[in-house]
Amino acid sequence: MSLIVQKFGGTSVGSLDLIRRVAERVNAARHDGTQIVVVVSAMGDSTDRLVDLARGICAEPDAREMDVLLATGEQVAIALLCIALRSLGCPARSYTGAQVRVMTSDVHTRARILDVETQRLRADLDRGVVPVVAGFQGVDAAGDITTIGRGGSDTTAVALAVALRADECQILTDVDGVYTTDPRMVPQARRLDRVTFDEMLELAGQGSRVLHLRSVEFASKYNMPLRVASSFAPGPGTLIGREDPRVEAPVVSGIAFNRDEAEITIAGVPDVPGTAHRLLKPVSDANIEVDMIVLNAPREGKVDLTFTVHRNDFGAALKLASKAVEQFAGATVTGNDRVAKLAVVGVGMRSHAGVATQLFEVLARESINVRMVSTSEIKISVLVDEPALERGVRSLHAAFGLDR
Amino acid sequence: MSLIVQKFGGTSVGSLDLIRRVAERVNAARHDGTQIVVVVSAMGDSTDRLVDLARGICAEPDAREMDVLLATGEQVAIALLCIALRSLGCPARSYTGAQVRVMTSDVHTRARILDVETQRLRADLDRGVVPVVAGFQGVDAAGDITTIGRGGSDTTAVALAVALRADECQILTDVDGVYTTDPRMVPQARRLDRVTFDEMLELAGQGSRVLHLRSVEFASKYNMPLRVASSFAPGPGTLIGREDPRVEAPVVSGIAFNRDEAEITIAGVPDVPGTAHRLLKPVSDANIEVDMIVLNAPREGKVDLTFTVHRNDFGAALKLASKAVEQFAGATVTGNDRVAKLAVVGVGMRSHAGVATQLFEVLARESINVRMVSTSEIKISVLVDEPALERGVRSLHAAFGLDR
Repeated sequence: MSLIVQKFGGTSVGSLDLIRRVAERVNAARHDGTQIVVVVSAMGDSTDRLVDLARGICAEPDAREMDVLLATGEQVAIALLCIALRSLGCPARSYTGAQVRVMTSDVHTRARILDVETQRLRADLDRGVVPVVAGFQGVDAAGDITTIGRGGSDTTAVALAVALRADECQILTDVDGVYTTDPRMVPQARRLDRVTFDEMLELAGQGSRVLHLRSVEFASKYNMPLRVASSFAPGPGTLIGREDPRVEAPVVSGIAFNRDEAEITIAGVPDVPGTAHRLLKPVSDANIEVDMIVLNAPREGKVDLTFTVHRNDFGAALKLASKAVEQFAGATVTGNDRVAKLAVVGVGMRSHAGVATQLFEVLARESINVRMVSTSEIKISVLVDEPALERGVRSLHAAFGLDR
Repeated sequence: MSLIVQKFGGTSVGSLDLIRRVAERVNAARHDGTQIVVVVSAMGDSTDRLVDLARGICAEPDAREMDVLLATGEQVAIALLCIALRSLGCPARSYTGAQVRVMTSDVHTRARILDVETQRLRADLDRGVVPVVAGFQGVDAAGDITTIGRGGSDTTAVALAVALRADECQILTDVDGVYTTDPRMVPQARRLDRVTFDEMLELAGQGSRVLHLRSVEFASKYNMPLRVASSFAPGPGTLIGREDPRVEAPVVSGIAFNRDEAEITIAGVPDVPGTAHRLLKPVSDANIEVDMIVLNAPREGKVDLTFTVHRNDFGAALKLASKAVEQFAGATVTGNDRVAKLAVVGVGMRSHAGVATQLFEVLARESINVRMVSTSEIKISVLVDEPALERGVRSLHAAFGLDR
């Protein structure tokens, strides 16, 4: 008998009508004998409403109490979904994170899952009951309620699937799978039947919002097959798993992009060890995440350092960089927050030379200037002027054979 | 050092502003070194809203899941109150019923408290932390969330006070104490400084909504002093405790009343054993609560049976009674749902004869017809025509010396 964990996000349970539809879907899925464990997020914007309540009392609410407060959102959802399942004649029992014993670290609002107990869930499954588990929450060793950060319900689902040795963990959402690129930008974008964990990590890290990064890492670590599919539309969705050695991987499986980039260049600093560290440390000390970093070859004992940050951090980073260069006579700082990143992702790249060449050729033909390049084993990212982004994504999508 | 349990009801935490005010009150109460444990109900009408959500899915939602759902109401309140307390610099920690381990029976939506663990609360108090506990909820032996019925937060507070051997359990609410009668009906009504548990039970049982009946029984059983006072206005409120042998109890301490009565009379049934049982059993089988029962002296081998029910149950009870008398030829059923009950309550009655005489004298002088009488050791209840109720309450209030 197969065992599937099905996770439904906040938009899938955003109203009583939708909760009824989720119940119907779960009930239908178990009718062929499949055992189902359900994980749900809080309804629609209820988490935001709870945050607003807390902020209405105090600008920086205590983290332990925020977790107690936020955990109620999923608790409402599991109860309502079980009421809906039972009204369909489907035996179901709800569990908070603390009741399952989703054991976490004690770092409130961003705890890490350490262990998941399965006794109660197993006992339910053995009796034909569908356990419905609150996502996003757990309990620490002291018995305090914790939450594992936004998007954490995906991670809860994967952790449960791993602990239960499920056959598959399904993330059911408002898109019907993972696409070669954003279909809103490229109408020819195709749903991918399969992608590897590594590809999904690169796609997710590029702002492809389908799956929470941590859940993909978690699934990859334990080789738990993940399926992204639509909550309500039929269709197989996209299966995310290890590379299938029997199938030749496509060279490029998708084009990711991210508009929210800003670039800062520090020119004319001395080419001595530690320069980059001294320039970037104030930025990372301010909790600003630095993404791409390029240090060009030295010329006359001087180098140029270019890095990118999220556009929201541009002003702060520029100020910190300007302060940091004061120690280097003649160094200058310039910035540009009208840039965007695009990336070509695919495990097949590893064994196929020439992807970078083809990438540059396509961009050159489109007269798109490549401002920065950064590469990993299965990804090539380039920074371009923002107005050129859409043209770049479309032409690469066609050139790498991804159009339908 | 004294230890006080303070319970705040839903109207006292009905908005963020009120929660801040409750926090200020709690924080002030601990400043003279008093240890405080707080119990809170769900905010305002949030329980009703949760019930509506569940009913929106299904007319008879599963009881186990209703408890999971309803328990979120108090969980939101404890978190917000702790956030407010901490923003005032008062160390506070919230606990759900399951976290404290308020152990209950497994009868969902109306569980009984069996035991309360105190380790975590004691540890907090020893460190100067104010524990804030969710009222109304607990956990059964299987680890399932339970609720103990509407108004149950009062009972939670008393149970905690008993378990912690507190010096006093304070029920802080929107009235400033227990009154000799409803001040909305009799402007001369006075706040009572003290009443006994027995008096409070009789007053509460008569529809005086200040305290939940179960909480008074619980406090009486363990001799836990209960104080009813205003959440925000100053004043000592009313202390409910055992009879003080040093103080001579007033003969009458209050006048209770209840408008929601209906009377059914079955006339001309045979005076043989079991008749009353055969007539009343169908009514109680239908879960209709019968309050007063009077069987008159037999005449020519026939008796008349009169009983009262809640006005909402009048139609159903009348139908059942009519069906039940079919077995008795010549018996008739009549009903009246425009009746009301008033009761004179006081522990002093036990040692003072003549209260009944005085009661009848006052009502006779006012030309109020007494339809039924029922007595207990510390209470005399009479059923009157509803239009006469207000006049009866006022004249008795004056006659027994209760006016200010």
